[in-house]
Amino acid sequence: MIKYPNKKKLSTTTLIKQSASRRGMSLENDLNSTNQYYLDHEIAVIHKKPTPLTIVDVAYPSRNKAKIVEAYFKTPSTTDYNGVYNGLSIDFEAKEISSKTSFPFSFLHDHQIKHLRMVHKQKACAFLIIRFTYYDETFLIPCSKLFDFMDNNERKSLPYTWVKEEGYLIKQGIYPPLDYLKIIDII
Amino acid sequence: MIKYPNKKKLSTTTLIKQSASRRGMSLENDLNSTNQYYLDHEIAVIHKKPTPLTIVDVAYPSRNKAKIVEAYFKTPSTTDYNGVYNGLSIDFEAKEISSKTSFPFSFLHDHQIKHLRMVHKQKACAFLIIRFTYYDETFLIPCSKLFDFMDNNERKSLPYTWVKEEGYLIKQGIYPPLDYLKIIDII
Repeated sequence: MIKYPNKKKLSTTTLIKQSASRRGMSLENDLNSTNQYYLDHEIAVIHKKPTPLTIVDVAYPSRNKAKIVEAYFKTPSTTDYNGVYNGLSIDFEAKEISSKTSFPFSFLHDHQIKHLRMVHKQKACAFLIIRFTYYDETFLIPCSKLFDFMDNNERKSLPYTWVKEEGYLIKQGIYPPLDYLKIIDII
Repeated sequence: MIKYPNKKKLSTTTLIKQSASRRGMSLENDLNSTNQYYLDHEIAVIHKKPTPLTIVDVAYPSRNKAKIVEAYFKTPSTTDYNGVYNGLSIDFEAKEISSKTSFPFSFLHDHQIKHLRMVHKQKACAFLIIRFTYYDETFLIPCSKLFDFMDNNERKSLPYTWVKEEGYLIKQGIYPPLDYLKIIDII
């Protein structure tokens, strides 16, 4: 490591600036921006799925414009993100959590866990991305490890210590903000 | 082939019944039902993506129920269907057309064509499913053939004769109604 004693003050400022600029950046923003980076650089094609809605009523205020005037949110039956990366089918769910100690499984819908099990069986690369906002740490947890934990434990949550041990910390950067495919390359 | 001369009349009735029962079955219904069959039999996990909407206003008539009161349809930036089939990333768009002679490219959004090119580059199994309702024939067209046609032709549509020659006719059945993965197994 190269040290720049003369630039110490500058580096600190920069660090503070970066940290401040990251404040309020949600996991979803980071992922969308990362996926856009992957798209622009032809690294992968990964999209967030639109929120599933039940449309009840549509009005046509003008000839070409349909306006939805009554719709409700549906429980998602799949994960939020999927796509393809160099022949690999990618499928994951991402969650942010303020807890310091664990990630409760209640944050995932039963349908989503079932979906992850099924795509895993179909040999997709399936995983969770969990951000512990208290530590500003974001981990990738392969589904094989997640299911192994779920199937051999009574616990209804993943302890932070387990995540730190078994998950992969995703390095946070400027652009892309969350280069999670680097982890996929490793595992 | 075994012939049942005594049951000829019954067979004809059955055929007519089947044909009548298929009337009004849209391509989307056939695909949803086929994908459900794949899911139930653990053959593949393929879903139709929700329609992308821009939500402008949400009301909360009761504490737990959010009601969307203003939203608009967005132009889709991806195809409608994707998923995973035995390690293969699947991505396709499906269109029904009443024309007897051709499938105009104007039926696809520019974004969708761009998306298909990109997932094809990422080694997904990308294709179109086109139903010519006049003939009640449904074809699978691999993207490699589609792009080859687009890049070497001035035409703005796929002629029906070309589709018949270069595409793969998907056999229509009862359940699943449209076993398109059989074609993927062949090609």
